Amino acid sequence: MVSLPEEEAQHLTRVLRLKAGAPVRVFNGRGSEFDGVVERAGKDAVRVRVGHARGTVPEARVAVTLAQAVLKGDKMDAVIRDAVMMGVVAVQPIVTDRSEVTLQSLLRGRRQERWARIAVSSAKQCGRAVIPAILEPQAFDAVVASLAGMTLPGPCLMFVEPSAAADAVAAGDLDRIPPREATVLVGPEGGWTPEELEKGAAVSRPVTLGGRTFRADAMPVVALTALFTRWGEL
Amino acid sequence: MVSLPEEEAQHLTRVLRLKAGAPVRVFNGRGSEFDGVVERAGKDAVRVRVGHARGTVPEARVAVTLAQAVLKGDKMDAVIRDAVMMGVVAVQPIVTDRSEVTLQSLLRGRRQERWARIAVSSAKQCGRAVIPAILEPQAFDAVVASLAGMTLPGPCLMFVEPSAAADAVAAGDLDRIPPREATVLVGPEGGWTPEELEKGAAVSRPVTLGGRTFRADAMPVVALTALFTRWGEL
Repeated sequence: MVSLPEEEAQHLTRVLRLKAGAPVRVFNGRGSEFDGVVERAGKDAVRVRVGHARGTVPEARVAVTLAQAVLKGDKMDAVIRDAVMMGVVAVQPIVTDRSEVTLQSLLRGRRQERWARIAVSSAKQCGRAVIPAILEPQAFDAVVASLAGMTLPGPCLMFVEPSAAADAVAAGDLDRIPPREATVLVGPEGGWTPEELEKGAAVSRPVTLGGRTFRADAMPVVALTALFTRWGEL
Repeated sequence: MVSLPEEEAQHLTRVLRLKAGAPVRVFNGRGSEFDGVVERAGKDAVRVRVGHARGTVPEARVAVTLAQAVLKGDKMDAVIRDAVMMGVVAVQPIVTDRSEVTLQSLLRGRRQERWARIAVSSAKQCGRAVIPAILEPQAFDAVVASLAGMTLPGPCLMFVEPSAAADAVAAGDLDRIPPREATVLVGPEGGWTPEELEKGAAVSRPVTLGGRTFRADAMPVVALTALFTRWGEL
């Protein structure tokens, strides 16, 4: 028997209006999903009797952390939703020189909590039984320090404009054998500054996506799809 | 000297509020972009003196037509915007068994005109000087007949669920040598019916994108990115 978290309990009673005896599926956010039956559906507390485990969507063989510059307005919501759909294991929001937000305003606006709720909802929609972690927003320099200190996992791929780095590799030419873990750096609307490109190059490999211009909010899904195609996930 | 189309003329005078003498860029929708100077900015008519040609974003070597099932609500707007960003040359909207719209309601709602405006705006945003054609919506059977009669270009790739076709190929395993032209079939929220899968198989090759579940409105950008990665465009 398990109790649902408050938000899911309210969704079950107030939106879905389920009563005791209703069949449901529950998942533990760490890869397992189960059949269940509602035992008690109170106003703010719901208890579910847990039954058999179910098959879920297989997770990617590469554990990707998306280190994404925070975008303007609510565009980051779409980025979180898409990244979870694609199959990342974590999103590290970053504040760069050209981000139009500050770390303080992100914390004040409780954006991390909002993004975590979006991650839950996208995982449910896409049949993932793993809820990716939404990490605490960090400044670009702090993320570079984490990469240098290996607290962020695996090799780092930094997506850049073709003009930004002479030694960049096209996504389609990356090694077909995937790493076990990888961090993927994607910049804001205005792109990386020359200083950020230089600092990034010290801890990552610059990667391009050909000569097209992609909208900043579409970059994560395009970058992740290109990588997963190359790595045999699609 | 050229006159701008009415909608662009109004955008220039009423939104951008440009006057005679203002420097602008104009493009002819067929691949060329030019520097220009506003010569006369009247209320509904704007004339521009055309100067030197400019470099534009290179077009894909594969001329892709996206044959996309019309989605619910305004989700098709996002699909058109993304497909133009990715670099398709045309979008063929199709009405399938599980589409929640009819051809009649699309025509009555002037959706084709709306999508054509979105195509212009997305092409401008992404620096493309080619405006992809938004074709007249057709029933699925009519599109299959066009593919059989070769009025739609090149080989056809039909994106399907892995469970839908035993002989489907993964996008990442397609031939690396791109065709000159291709038609890409993408289904609606509820997927293809067994009858549509059968009719489609007669004129196309079934292609899968691994075991993940993608939102219907994200399918075109994921499918096109996977193809373009495989074909050396990204």
